[in-house]
Formats: sequence, structure tokens, C-alpha cells
Amino acid sequence: MTTLEILQAVAAGQLSPSAATTQLETTQTAALGFANVDLSRADRNGFPEVVYGAGKTATQIVGIVQALKHQTLPVLATRVSAEKFAALQPALPQAIYHETARCVTVGQLPQPTNPDDYIAIVTAGTSDVPVAEEAAVTAQAFGNRVERVYDVGVAGIHRLFAKLDLIRGAKVVIVIAGMEGALASVVGGLVNKPLIAVPTSIGYGTNFQGMTALLTMLNSCASGITVVNIDNGFGAAYSASLINQL
Amino acid sequence: MTTLEILQAVAAGQLSPSAATTQLETTQTAALGFANVDLSRADRNGFPEVVYGAGKTATQIVGIVQALKHQTLPVLATRVSAEKFAALQPALPQAIYHETARCVTVGQLPQPTNPDDYIAIVTAGTSDVPVAEEAAVTAQAFGNRVERVYDVGVAGIHRLFAKLDLIRGAKVVIVIAGMEGALASVVGGLVNKPLIAVPTSIGYGTNFQGMTALLTMLNSCASGITVVNIDNGFGAAYSASLINQL
Amino acid sequence: MTTLEILQAVAAGQLSPSAATTQLETTQTAALGFANVDLSRADRNGFPEVVYGAGKTATQIVGIVQALKHQTLPVLATRVSAEKFAALQPALPQAIYHETARCVTVGQLPQPTNPDDYIAIVTAGTSDVPVAEEAAVTAQAFGNRVERVYDVGVAGIHRLFAKLDLIRGAKVVIVIAGMEGALASVVGGLVNKPLIAVPTSIGYGTNFQGMTALLTMLNSCASGITVVNIDNGFGAAYSASLINQL
Amino acid sequence: MTTLEILQAVAAGQLSPSAATTQLETTQTAALGFANVDLSRADRNGFPEVVYGAGKTATQIVGIVQALKHQTLPVLATRVSAEKFAALQPALPQAIYHETARCVTVGQLPQPTNPDDYIAIVTAGTSDVPVAEEAAVTAQAFGNRVERVYDVGVAGIHRLFAKLDLIRGAKVVIVIAGMEGALASVVGGLVNKPLIAVPTSIGYGTNFQGMTALLTMLNSCASGITVVNIDNGFGAAYSASLINQL
Amino acid sequence: MTTLEILQAVAAGQLSPSAATTQLETTQTAALGFANVDLSRADRNGFPEVVYGAGKTATQIVGIVQALKHQTLPVLATRVSAEKFAALQPALPQAIYHETARCVTVGQLPQPTNPDDYIAIVTAGTSDVPVAEEAAVTAQAFGNRVERVYDVGVAGIHRLFAKLDLIRGAKVVIVIAGMEGALASVVGGLVNKPLIAVPTSIGYGTNFQGMTALLTMLNSCASGITVVNIDNGFGAAYSASLINQL
Amino acid sequence: MTTLEILQAVAAGQLSPSAATTQLETTQTAALGFANVDLSRADRNGFPEVVYGAGKTATQIVGIVQALKHQTLPVLATRVSAEKFAALQPALPQAIYHETARCVTVGQLPQPTNPDDYIAIVTAGTSDVPVAEEAAVTAQAFGNRVERVYDVGVAGIHRLFAKLDLIRGAKVVIVIAGMEGALASVVGGLVNKPLIAVPTSIGYGTNFQGMTALLTMLNSCASGITVVNIDNGFGAAYSASLINQL
Amino acid sequence: MTTLEILQAVAAGQLSPSAATTQLETTQTAALGFANVDLSRADRNGFPEVVYGAGKTATQIVGIVQALKHQTLPVLATRVSAEKFAALQPALPQAIYHETARCVTVGQLPQPTNPDDYIAIVTAGTSDVPVAEEAAVTAQAFGNRVERVYDVGVAGIHRLFAKLDLIRGAKVVIVIAGMEGALASVVGGLVNKPLIAVPTSIGYGTNFQGMTALLTMLNSCASGITVVNIDNGFGAAYSASLINQL
Amino acid sequence: MTTLEILQAVAAGQLSPSAATTQLETTQTAALGFANVDLSRADRNGFPEVVYGAGKTATQIVGIVQALKHQTLPVLATRVSAEKFAALQPALPQAIYHETARCVTVGQLPQPTNPDDYIAIVTAGTSDVPVAEEAAVTAQAFGNRVERVYDVGVAGIHRLFAKLDLIRGAKVVIVIAGMEGALASVVGGLVNKPLIAVPTSIGYGTNFQGMTALLTMLNSCASGITVVNIDNGFGAAYSASLINQL
Repeated sequence: MTTLEILQAVAAGQLSPSAATTQLETTQTAALGFANVDLSRADRNGFPEVVYGAGKTATQIVGIVQALKHQTLPVLATRVSAEKFAALQPALPQAIYHETARCVTVGQLPQPTNPDDYIAIVTAGTSDVPVAEEAAVTAQAFGNRVERVYDVGVAGIHRLFAKLDLIRGAKVVIVIAGMEGALASVVGGLVNKPLIAVPTSIGYGTNFQGMTALLTMLNSCASGITVVNIDNGFGAAYSASLINQL
Repeated sequence: MTTLEILQAVAAGQLSPSAATTQLETTQTAALGFANVDLSRADRNGFPEVVYGAGKTATQIVGIVQALKHQTLPVLATRVSAEKFAALQPALPQAIYHETARCVTVGQLPQPTNPDDYIAIVTAGTSDVPVAEEAAVTAQAFGNRVERVYDVGVAGIHRLFAKLDLIRGAKVVIVIAGMEGALASVVGGLVNKPLIAVPTSIGYGTNFQGMTALLTMLNSCASGITVVNIDNGFGAAYSASLINQL
Repeated sequence: MTTLEILQAVAAGQLSPSAATTQLETTQTAALGFANVDLSRADRNGFPEVVYGAGKTATQIVGIVQALKHQTLPVLATRVSAEKFAALQPALPQAIYHETARCVTVGQLPQPTNPDDYIAIVTAGTSDVPVAEEAAVTAQAFGNRVERVYDVGVAGIHRLFAKLDLIRGAKVVIVIAGMEGALASVVGGLVNKPLIAVPTSIGYGTNFQGMTALLTMLNSCASGITVVNIDNGFGAAYSASLINQL
Repeated sequence: MTTLEILQAVAAGQLSPSAATTQLETTQTAALGFANVDLSRADRNGFPEVVYGAGKTATQIVGIVQALKHQTLPVLATRVSAEKFAALQPALPQAIYHETARCVTVGQLPQPTNPDDYIAIVTAGTSDVPVAEEAAVTAQAFGNRVERVYDVGVAGIHRLFAKLDLIRGAKVVIVIAGMEGALASVVGGLVNKPLIAVPTSIGYGTNFQGMTALLTMLNSCASGITVVNIDNGFGAAYSASLINQL
Repeated sequence: MTTLEILQAVAAGQLSPSAATTQLETTQTAALGFANVDLSRADRNGFPEVVYGAGKTATQIVGIVQALKHQTLPVLATRVSAEKFAALQPALPQAIYHETARCVTVGQLPQPTNPDDYIAIVTAGTSDVPVAEEAAVTAQAFGNRVERVYDVGVAGIHRLFAKLDLIRGAKVVIVIAGMEGALASVVGGLVNKPLIAVPTSIGYGTNFQGMTALLTMLNSCASGITVVNIDNGFGAAYSASLINQL
Repeated sequence: MTTLEILQAVAAGQLSPSAATTQLETTQTAALGFANVDLSRADRNGFPEVVYGAGKTATQIVGIVQALKHQTLPVLATRVSAEKFAALQPALPQAIYHETARCVTVGQLPQPTNPDDYIAIVTAGTSDVPVAEEAAVTAQAFGNRVERVYDVGVAGIHRLFAKLDLIRGAKVVIVIAGMEGALASVVGGLVNKPLIAVPTSIGYGTNFQGMTALLTMLNSCASGITVVNIDNGFGAAYSASLINQL
Repeated sequence: MTTLEILQAVAAGQLSPSAATTQLETTQTAALGFANVDLSRADRNGFPEVVYGAGKTATQIVGIVQALKHQTLPVLATRVSAEKFAALQPALPQAIYHETARCVTVGQLPQPTNPDDYIAIVTAGTSDVPVAEEAAVTAQAFGNRVERVYDVGVAGIHRLFAKLDLIRGAKVVIVIAGMEGALASVVGGLVNKPLIAVPTSIGYGTNFQGMTALLTMLNSCASGITVVNIDNGFGAAYSASLINQL
Repeated sequence: MTTLEILQAVAAGQLSPSAATTQLETTQTAALGFANVDLSRADRNGFPEVVYGAGKTATQIVGIVQALKHQTLPVLATRVSAEKFAALQPALPQAIYHETARCVTVGQLPQPTNPDDYIAIVTAGTSDVPVAEEAAVTAQAFGNRVERVYDVGVAGIHRLFAKLDLIRGAKVVIVIAGMEGALASVVGGLVNKPLIAVPTSIGYGTNFQGMTALLTMLNSCASGITVVNIDNGFGAAYSASLINQL
């Protein structure tokens, strides 16, 4: 039952308000004590709840994954270290670890619904690849085709131009860059698709763990660029998936 | 001639490399001395160049608008104060001033190509409306249908729920909020469409001219949210237009 | 009709869900175009909506005050400059201006329900008095007795000790200080009542418009201190009123 | 003898000023060399001194606890790591370790004086629970009834609404959230009791170790919210206890 | 007499140490009461003292210019507003005002010593031109040939490529950009000459008055870039002149 | 009666505790309503209360000066603008305005008690002179001899060496500098007297209104340097006076 | 030979300028390759060079101590960890380690020249003691009498008043505090001697590693306070020693 | 083939546009999967690509070095820890490790082309030497003569004057300093050559990991100073090499 159906049942006198409250609570949330797993998220937000692994124990991750996999597959967990994966694998033998992306998936990744539409994931450097892979695994888990264009930063801009057709062919573009993050502006000036920029924490000194790249992207002189939090490959892929599947 | 056509002409021996350079320079740029107007932007980026009026004189704005309107209509200028509009109006008698939005348009606003698709523009408070109107005028100038949902901040969250169907029906949602900017997270948890969040500089003290709302939006616990610069209604509308017209 | 009553009517089949939505919207919100006035706030939050005058025009303030005064009196507007008050007074002839507090009230201030309970409002210096008066007028408009203890900063700590009995007798204490804000810690070490600290923007240089006093108050070595935004006399009084009327 | 009694004895000529000074020093402070334990704090501030364990050695903690427990029970120590507890346990065999809260108590926790009044402790996520438990243990050590409402963040707002009655029934509400901290504003718009907001350091990138959640809470558009330092569950509980016992 | 000659005279017994001190003080400094004009700067630092006009009165500027022009010509004053120039012109009738640059020169600008060597001054936008002109006038006053390449920002990168030969032909390149400042990185990746980057305060919101462009330039992924303070066209030109005249 | 005498009277039974409280309040504080003037400050802190003029009205300044001048002379007020002085002069006809210092004195400045001991006040530039004069007037009002050494910044370091003997002869040195504030370190490496460094807000861009100079001074590689707030000439002179009169 | 004697020899023709340069270099500096030990510092700055141990290897510290101890005793090294001391002790068997202060001294600490004059070192809490001990050991190594007053923070202000006579009797007072640092203002309002405030990095959250205490101290409403860098006990003691020995 | 030659071949009809694209991609970039090695950088930027070792695995570094050494020698890698060097040495037996500089070179360092021209590398302290050595190794790998002047900070300014002739004789000067970074200003006031300032992260407290030294250098009152990122010895040497070889 969706929220709407519950409310209609209330209106039809088939459900009392207090029963409806209980209903809403029990069917849309799996209460684990340490977490209220949100079972209505795919309905409300387009994709099911994803487990943010940082700051959770292996046991907690296993519990949430179990609650989610009854409802939908694949289940995705991000920010899971190799150590934590080793600890949770016995309880989730079917789980697969995406090492560079630091992601875990349970259940087969779906085929893209529309293989002509794809998300281009572009990085400035080699060090930005882990964030790019978090984005790629997320987008694939949500049923998107992904094209990777890595290490084409502006210090050697011919590398970017050599890949421009692939980037321009995408339905939505994710640009991932650390240091000064100028790649977002340059790509933004060359494409006519929505561009989501992801600053990374790569750099040193006045890079301030990615703050400089973030500020660059927020102040871009090119239009059509929106920005997510530092190192947030997951968030960029979430929004890109919503756009790619419009 | 597009860039591609020029390059093909070079390949065909019809154009020397140096002549091609000149060609590229002259057909794609209107050199005004104080500005190189970018005439190929609609080709490259989806929408024609928009005049950013802040920090330009009325004379400069007139010159750039003249250069642009030979190519496409309407021409849009943002961040134009009432005083500056008064100064440029004699030279651009057909210009229309959108007072709350502080925007100028020259030429008729287009009808939306697909009237079923619309952009919902949602604000937390009354003081956020000028930024919302900058977004609305921009989106309309780019040929989009817009639905305005103003003053539905979380201090009185029933106001938001009363408008939820209208917001959920949009193809893309823009949420505009100052102070603590919590509205973006709440809407983000309730819709399954791409959401672009715009922090505004409304607030005082530790609001830091919109920095607090920006940080809130970048760190949202809800997924599917991307962010633009503080008060950047134009930029949000630009990206939203690209998405709405996919 | 309260929200609860509306929902019960839905359950009773006397109201369709869509009619209930309209009902919720119309009885709990006064839609003025520029604002959705929140008419159910006193029910939900203890006190009716207060008009935040900064960034609103005189006309907007008048409109919101008119909408509110049908429901409850007095109506309070904060952050209203003398110029803005002059502009709105013709439309609200019964309005009274509290100059130091920069507040407007419409309708008579209530007598304190329990005159034995009072809020002590303590300032470090003379320059903090406008913020203190915003707090005092707010607290009085909400039906509280207020005791003012001004200019007792720690540079001359005997001034504080001379007033200590009055401060200790309060049910809740508001301490308002700029510069380094040390008064909050000192008072916090001497009272056994909840203390709400308000940093002010008084100071220069590394005071950073009140940021230093805010940080001082957040890091106080004394316990029992909570903090509000810089210069937020209204917010301190709102919380203090909730406490004083428990 | 309280401070007042000492001063009256001076006035009565029963005590010379210099003897009074000694008296004040010896009866109100236990001088341990490394610390002057404040024995008059319960008189002055409502609750006895609590040992802040961070930055103190196990030996120092034991010494202070010994000094305090002659006077009142239970004694509470916060910010004690598991390692430090292991080191101090032999010297304090009756000490109990609250692992998630990282707190130590010596002596039985008191029954709530008034079981109808309770403090609701609400968290946005699972990762905020340690701060919430610090608050809960503190509140219980000070004789309050506590109701825990965990993992009801705004990304799945139906989880919050399902618990709203429990929250609204409290005499004072503590809201604990990291990331963008929007939960404080949403709860603040729905309750009519004092709300103390605690930002946590949960998050990454522009979260700045809790600074973003702090700023959100300080700038909330909802009224009736006061704020404490990042991760300061103890401080929130201290103030909440003062309010709950009014 | 240079410092060296004075010291040799001391060594030769022709000058006592205390007389040498006086000598150093009087020949190398013109003491005006409000200023000690540094007359040995051209000897020590390559170019004579330049008057920084901000925060000096017209009278003070006139006095310092008078002191300097006895020694060398032209004299340059930067950061002089139009109002201040009007006030000082009667006392310095031969002074010329460079309006966009906000600079004053007294005495004819020199011919470049080596006309083949030039400094390219490149800007991202129209609003950066005043800073560029401050750099251009400074460089010309110091005897350099200057080539201006304005409004070639990365949003329309073809404008930059059209001017690349002119930029590559310079002995040293100054790149001036506000907003996100990405132009510096792009040019830095395309030239093999020293590049001095000047962030400007053009932008809004998280631009932080030029801080974002500064950080971008300091963190550039391209090599061979050094940076000066925000809006410091003068400083960039000073260093560029030293390099151009090597 | 001093605080000590009052307490002895209490001990002698000549004064009741409550009468003593009144006594303390009335003899040590002049309550003006808007201010509690601290009449015991010279006893406690070495020098009488000084009126900080910023943020006080002319009327308030007059009131406080009247209260103070009954007790001691001269009375000093700092941060008084020329406009404010014009407004208060009719009520204080004997007041003298020190224009560059923006200070007012009432009553004759005292002769230095020990004319051999002096405070050297050293500035880096001409623009730092107003802060230096605030320090100088303050020091003179407190009975010190002052030697001014202005505009000897490190860009022309020979100007500093020419004045080194005068600086080294002081009992305490105040160094005042804006921009990068390097002068404090250089002087600190050359003197064996306490040095108080005052950062000024002179500069632009990344100077951050004096923050850069402040940080420089706090991190000096030279020893024997302590620092006061930005532009706090008064504070530096207060401490220097205490030292000079030891 | 001092600098002055060398210059006089030059003037007398007994020394050529280039020989004088060599002389200056060799007698005033011990060149160790990794360091130029400053042998003239006691002459110039009142006290000999102190070894800052952080970021130096044990070998480097030994080398510098050896160079210094030929000239003067005792030699002091600060910021030396226990591990580093263990590594350098074999090479410096006479070295003594002051554990809490993390300082090393070589050679006997001198008797105070004037035992009546002393430096009071006051801390707010127990955790501030290591910084206080760095100050105490430094002051003692420089020949001062020190009085320690520890753990008298404002949360229990009676602890401070009990020690006030000892503090007031000092010639100069050092106040050391972390968290909000309010103790400096309170002591500053109660003494008439120069007060040097040292912020410590004790605290959490918005304490920002001592930045909050630093800002508090710089903005104190009490006069006569100067400030040093965070945790800089050495620097405070250096300045205090200069003052105490005037 | 250079880019120019490729374009001319297109114009001559010898190469189709798409073949030219492939050509550009394959001859100018070595695609390693994890990196697109930039083989045209020496042509475009004066010096070949340098491997930034931080954030790359030993395997990745080996791969990139292999790709580069086919083209030019020596190959330089910076920011390589001793552990990482040990891991890569077996695969690159000819590699040499510069320990203090944390740099690796493969292939013999070249003789300076013009031995009369040199780069002076000046440090304030001993702790700045690692950054200086990174600069020195870089400059030598690029064919420059280097003169090292270490530990001449302003706390003992005679050490600087003793080396001034060597510094003044350079064609370009690099000044490296942490703490407050004042050395850059002092040297800047004494030389007439381009000066590149490098802030280091040496210091504590308000040094903010080098931010203070950076700000000092950006705001220097001396002219002719440009700045690079914190600890960026490589970047300073890159620009200095371009200048030294003009």
C-alpha cells in the first residue's frame, strides 16, 4: 500500500486515523532498533534507499541490507572499506565488492533500460577515479549505461578534445575534479547537456580538502552546471540517473 | 558556418588554416572592444549567451544586446538594476523590465514547446521571491512552462504539503531558500525528480550571506539534490531548462 | 478547525481527501500572494506568527499584520526600521513603535499570567541594549514579566555581583553580550536556571560581527547554557517564554 | 556552610575576613593539586560537577570522582574511552560503563522525581546515537525520565510523523542531527515546547565536522530553538534537565 | 651616493659611522612628516617607488609625487579615484589620469627598450578590464611593450584559441580572471613562458570577493603559474616587468 | 571606601551584608540607566575607565564623561568621529579633539612621571598613523612619554635602521602595521624590550581587514612579541603604559 | 666583538668592509649546515636563542644545543617529546627533561635576580597545565620567580577569588585557558598589572583547536591584555620575563 | 608530428579530420588506462611532464615513468615517500632517491646550459629545507644552477645580510618560509630580480598549516613578489626555471 492508498482507505472509512498511522509506520519503515529503514523511498524518490556505510558497523550494514533486499534488488552500499566488507561478507555471501569504488552490491546489476542514453563520467586526473567509480557503480546499479572518460584535465587540454564527441553524446555529464577543478568550466562551455560537477578532496595546501574545487565549480563562468558535496560521487550519480531516465 | 563545417572546409582544401582561424574568430565572436560576444553559444551550450548585467555599464549592455539580437530572440539580461534599465531603455525601446526579477528581455518570450512539462519553482519565504523570479523569467525566456510555489518554508510545513501534488508533477524542481535552507532537504525527500537547490543570501548573523543555506543544501541527507551558487536563480533555471527539454 | 479535527472529518467520511487538502490550506494559511501567513502557528508552536520585518516592504508588513490580527492580539513585528514604521503607520494607526527594540506592536501587551515568574535579561554593555530590548518586547508581547539588568560586563565584575540576587530569582535568564561574550560563562557559573546566551555584533576587528561572542558562548566551561544566532533577541525571548510558562 | 552562611558569619563577627577566605577555599573546593574540585556546584548550578574525561588521565579521573562521591551520588564522567575506563575500573570497582554514550557512572541512577515529565531525545540518523546516548545518560543521572526517538531524519519524513505524538508530549525536546541538520527546523515547526538542538560531527566534505549542522540550527526559520556546541550531548541534557525540573 | 659608496667611504675613514647613518637617512629617504619617501628603491628593487593612492589624501599624494619626480620620471600613482585626481590636478597640472586603470602618471611614458619583448595581458571577461589596465599602465610606465587580449574566458574557449599565437609570443603572460578563475589553468597548459595570475573580485556569493579565483590559481593543475593578491594588477605588472627586462 | 574597606566594615559589624551590597553598588558604580560607570577601575586596573565612543550616542558619551570627571582627570574617549565630537562639544566645552587619533580628552594631559622612560610607537606606513595616534594620545593621557617613529616598513628597511637607536632606547615598543605586518618580526628580532604588536586593517584582497597582519604577528619567528586586536591602538597603549610605569 | 665594535673597527680602517662581513657572519652565527645558530640573540633580544624542538631531529637538537652551550647556560629546548628526549639524552647526558612541560634544560636553572618580583601563571583548567608548565620552565630558565595558580576557571569563580591576592601581587600575570577562554577577561578586570593571555587548544567542536579562546582574548572587554599564539607558553613567558626584569 | 604539423597535413588533404583526431590522440598521449600521459608537454609548456607521486601507487608511478622516459630524460617524480620509493625501485633500478626532497629522478641530471645564471633558494628556517630541496632538485632536473641559502630568517636578520650578495646575484630568487613568512617581504625589499615566495606548513596554532605564511606573502608591502601554493617547492622551481632560461 502506498501513502496515497492508505489515505484513500482512511477517506473510505476502511481505516481509522490511528490505524493508518500504524500502517504508515509499519509498511514503510523497517524498525531495526538502530535504524528505521525507509521502505517507501523508491516510491517517493525514484530509487530505493542506499546504505551509507561510513559510520555504521558491519552488523548494522548487514541488518539494513537484509531489510532492503526483501523489497528490491540490487541493494547498494557505499563508503564501505575493504576491512568492513571482509567483516560483513560471511553474513552476505552473495555480496560483491567494487574495490576502487568502495561499494558493495547485492543482487545482479540491471541492464540499462534505454541503452542509447548514457551518462558520461569525466575526471581531471587519475586520483579522482575512486570518486568516479562510486558514481559509475551507483549509476549502473540504478540501471544506467555509463561511459568513462578519465584523466583529461586542462593541463593537457588536447586529451579532452580527443574525447569530446563521446562526452557530447551523453544525456547528462558528470565532471569530477580535484585541485582547482577547472575542468568543469571547460566542459561546461562545450556541451549542451546538464552537467553535474563533483569536487574531490585531491590536492594539498590551499586546496582545503576539496573546498577550492567546490568553490570553482559553484562560481563557474559556464552555464548549465550544478554541484554536489566534495567526493560525493553517489549523489552526482543519483541526480544523473533521475535525469537520464526522464 | 559551424565549427564542424569550417573544419571540413579546411580538410577539403577550400580554406587555409589561417583563413579558418579568422573565420572562426569572425563568425563566432562579435568583437566589441570591451567584449567578445559569443555567437556560437546556443550551438555549443543549448541556449544563447545571456548578458550578466552586474558590473557592466548601460552602454556595454546595449552593445552586447544589439550584437546578440541579430542572431536570436529573445535576448535576456540579468542583474540589471532599475537605474541601469532607465539608462539603457532609450537605446532599446522594445526592452521590457521584469522588476522583481531585475531582468530585461528584448523580443517576445516563446511559448513552451511542450506545455505538459514544467519546472516547479518553490521558495521557503517571501524574501526569496526575487531570486525565484530571476529563475522564472530565465526559464520562460528559454521556452519553458513554469509553476510558482512561494512561501512554503518548513516553519509551517502544512503549507508545503498543500502544494505537494503540484511540485511532484514537475519534470524538474527548483527549491530556493535562505536562512537555514532546510526546505531543500524536505522537498528532496518527497519527490522523484531532479531537484536543483538555490541558497539565497536572506538571513543575518551566522547566515553569512547565504553560506549557511548553501552548506545545508550540499550536505542534504536527501538524495537527488544538486546545488548552484548563492542567489543564482539564473543558473538554476539554465540547468533546469536543459533537463526540462530533454 | 484544527488539523486533528480535519483528519477526523476525513476519517468520518464527512470530508474527501481533496476537500481536506483545500480545507487545510485555507483555514491554516492566509495566502496573500507574496506570503502564506501561518494561522495555525500558535496551536503548533505556542505563540502566533511574528512578522520578521527585515527584507519586507511596509506594504507587505501591513498585509501580514492585517491577516494575523483577525486571529489574535497583540501582533508583533521585529526588525522594523524607523523609516519603515513611518511608512506603515498610516495603514496601521493603532501600531506602537518600540524605538530601541526596533519592534512594532499592534494591540495591547498582555499582563503576565504568573507575575512571580520572570525572565531576567542581562547585558554586558550599553551597546547590547537594542538586542536586549528586542528580547524584552517579545517576551512582554508573549505575556511574560521581564527584569532588565543592563551593563554589568566582566570588566567591572562588582556590577554583576550587585545584581546577582535579581538574576538568580528568575525562572530563566537571557545573557546578551558582544565583544568576547565572557559574561555568559560567568553568569552560567552562578545560577541554577536555564540560561540562553545571545551574542551581539558589537565589537570590531576579530570580533567578526559577533562570531567571537557566539563561539565563546558555544564553548562555555559553565553548564546550562544554550545559544541563539547573533543579535537574535527575538529568538532568545521566544524560547525563554516557552520555558517561563511551563 | 554555603557562601551565604559564610558571609553572614563574617557579618556577625564570628569569622574574620581572612578566615572566611580560607573557609570558602576549603569547604567549596577539593584541591587535588592537578584540580580544584568544585564542591559547591550543585548549590550554585543545580547539579553537581561532572567530570569531563577527555584530556584527563585515568588517575586524575579517579581522584576527582573520589572527591565528588563523598558529597553526592551518582557521580558522572563523560567522554571516557573504553581504554580509559579499563584503566580506572580497578580503582573504582562500582563504576558502570555506558559504552555507546562513552560515560561512566558511580552510584545508582535516581528515579525520576516527576515521571510524567520527560525529555524527548530525537536523532536524524543512526550515526547520531552516541551523542544522543551521552545526553540520555546525563539526563537520567540528573533524575529525568527520557524517551528516545532515533533515526527519524527528513529524508524519510513519514518516520518523524509516526513519532510526533511522543515528541509533542515531552516537556522539553532535544534534537540531534549531523549532515545538514534540517531535522531541528522541521521538529521546531511542529512542537510548542523548548527545543535544544545538538549538531553532530557526522558527515563529510563541506560538513566541516558538524559546522554545517550547527549553522543550520542557529539560522532555523522555526522559533523556539536554542543550540549547543557540536556533539555536546551532555550540555543539551544539562539545560534540558534544568527545564524539565522547573 | 649609493649604499655601497657610503660604506666604502666609511671604510676609507672619509665618513664617520654616525655621519654615514645620517647620510643614509637623508639621501635615501625624503622625510615628509607623513611619509619617508624611499629614494633608493630603483637601485634596490629595479623600479622607483610607486605611490599607492588608496588611503592617502590628495595632499599626501602630491607631496610624495613632488619628492619622487626630482629623482626620476615618470612617476606613477595607482588606486587614485576620479575624485581624488580632480583634487590633486591643480597642484600637478602635468599629471595624466588613466580612468579605467585608476592610475595617474606624471612625465612621459618611456618607449620600450626592446620592442620585440612584450607582456601579454589576458582577461577572462569585460569586468576584469580595470585590473588589466592597472597592470598595462604600470608595465608601460616601467618601459615595457604590452599586448592586450581581453574577454577570452573559458565559457567560449574558441575566443582564446583565436588569440593563442599572440599570447604564446609574449616573454611573460599575465592572466586576469574573476569568478572561478579557470582561465589561468587553461592558458597555463598552453604556453611555455612564465605566467602570473591575478584573481579579481568579480563575482558574487561564494566568490568571496575574489578568494575563489585566488584559490583556483594557487591550486592549478598546470605548471609555471605564480599568483599575486586579489585585484593586484600593479604587482603582477611589477614582476612581469622584471622578467620582461631580464 | 575601597572594596577592602567595605569588607572590613562588614567584618567589624559596622555594616550589614545587605548594606554593604548597596554600598558597593553605589560608590563603585554610577548608574546612568544606559550605563553603570565603573568608578573603581583605576583602583582595580591601574587606569580609570575610558569611554569607548563607537556605538554610543553623543548624549551617552557626555553623561559618562560627566560621571567620570568628578573622580579623576583627564577623561579620555576613543573612537569618536568628528561628527559626534561636534555634537557633544556644546555640552563639554573644555573637551579637546585629537583628529587623527579620533580621541577626545577632557582635562589637561599629565606630565610623564619619569621622563627617561618612554614608549616607542613605530608604524610600517603612512596609513597606519591613525591607529598610532590613538595609541599615542592614550599613552600620554596615562602619563607616559611617547616617541613616534612612523613609515619605516620593511619595503625600505634602511628607514628602520636609521631609527633603530631611538626604538632600542624605549622601555616598551609598540609596532603598528597593516598589509602583511612583517615589521613586527623584524623589530622583534632587533630589540630586547617587550614589544606589543598592533595589526591594522590597511590593505585589500586577502588582507581580510587586518586578519593577515594579525596572523603574521601571532606567528612571529621573533620572540618577545604579544598582540592585540586589529586597529586596537588603545589596548596596546594601555598595556604599554602598565609596563612603562612598573 | 659586538656589531657596534665591528662597525667602529671599519670606521677606524682596522677592518675592510668585506672582512667585516666575514666577521659579522662568523662571530654571530654558528653555521651547522642545517642551521645558522644565532649567537648574538641575548645581546639583541635579552635572552639567548631557545631551541624549538618540533620538526627538528634529535641530532639537530643536539648540534644546536652544543653550539649554544659554549656561550651561555642554561640552554633551553621546547616542544621536545619524550621519545625525542630519549634519543638525544646519550649525547647530552647532563640534560634534564621536564615531562609535563615537554622541555629540556642543559645547565642549572638560575636563581631569580629579584625574588620579590614574580610572574603569576594562572590556568582555567587541569588540561591547560602542560602549556602552563612550558611557560613556567621557560620563565625559570630565564631567571624569574614563578607562582602557579592552576584550575581556577570561571565555572567555579570562587576558586579564583580565593587566589586573587597571589595573582594581584605579581609583577606580570600569564592567564592560560582553552574552551571559551573567559578567564582572561575576568582576571583582566581584577588586576592592575600587564596580563599576557595564552589560548590553549583544549576543547572540541567549535573550539577550533584554540581559535575560540584566542578570539575571546583578543576581544576582551577588559583592558591591559595582550595575546600570544595558541599553546604558546614559551612566548608568553619570554615577554613576561622581559617585563618582570625591567 | 606537432599539433601544427598535423593541422597543416589536414589542410594539405593528406589527413582527414577524423584521422587527425586519432593522430592527435595517439602521438601526444600515452593512454595507460589509469592515466593519459601527456607527451607534448615539453613542446607546449617548456618542460616535460613531471610525475606527482602523492595519491598514486608505486605501480602507477612506474608505468608513467616508463612512458615518459622513452621520450626524454631525466624523468622527475615528486612527493614520493621513502616507502613508495622502496616499492618502485625494483622496477626502476636506475632510479635515484633524493631523500630530503622526497623526489625520484631517472636519468642523469643535466649540466646547466648557462652556468652564470642561477636560482637562489633561500629559507627562513631549518624546517623549511625539505620544501627547498624539492625546489632545488626540480630546478636541477630542468637544467638550472642552484645556490642554497638556508636558515636566514628575520629573527636573526644579520644572517640574511651576510648572504645578501649571493642572493642579489641570482637571476631569480625563491624564498621559502613558514610561521609568519616575513622573510619574503624583507628579501623582496632588497633585490631587483623576480622573487617567487613559497609558504610552508611549518608552525602551529594560528599558522593554519601554512595559511598565515601564504597570506603574508600575498600581502607583502614589497613589490616584485609572486606566490605559489603552500609547500609547493616544485611549482616555484618550475616558474623559476622558465625565468632563468629566458
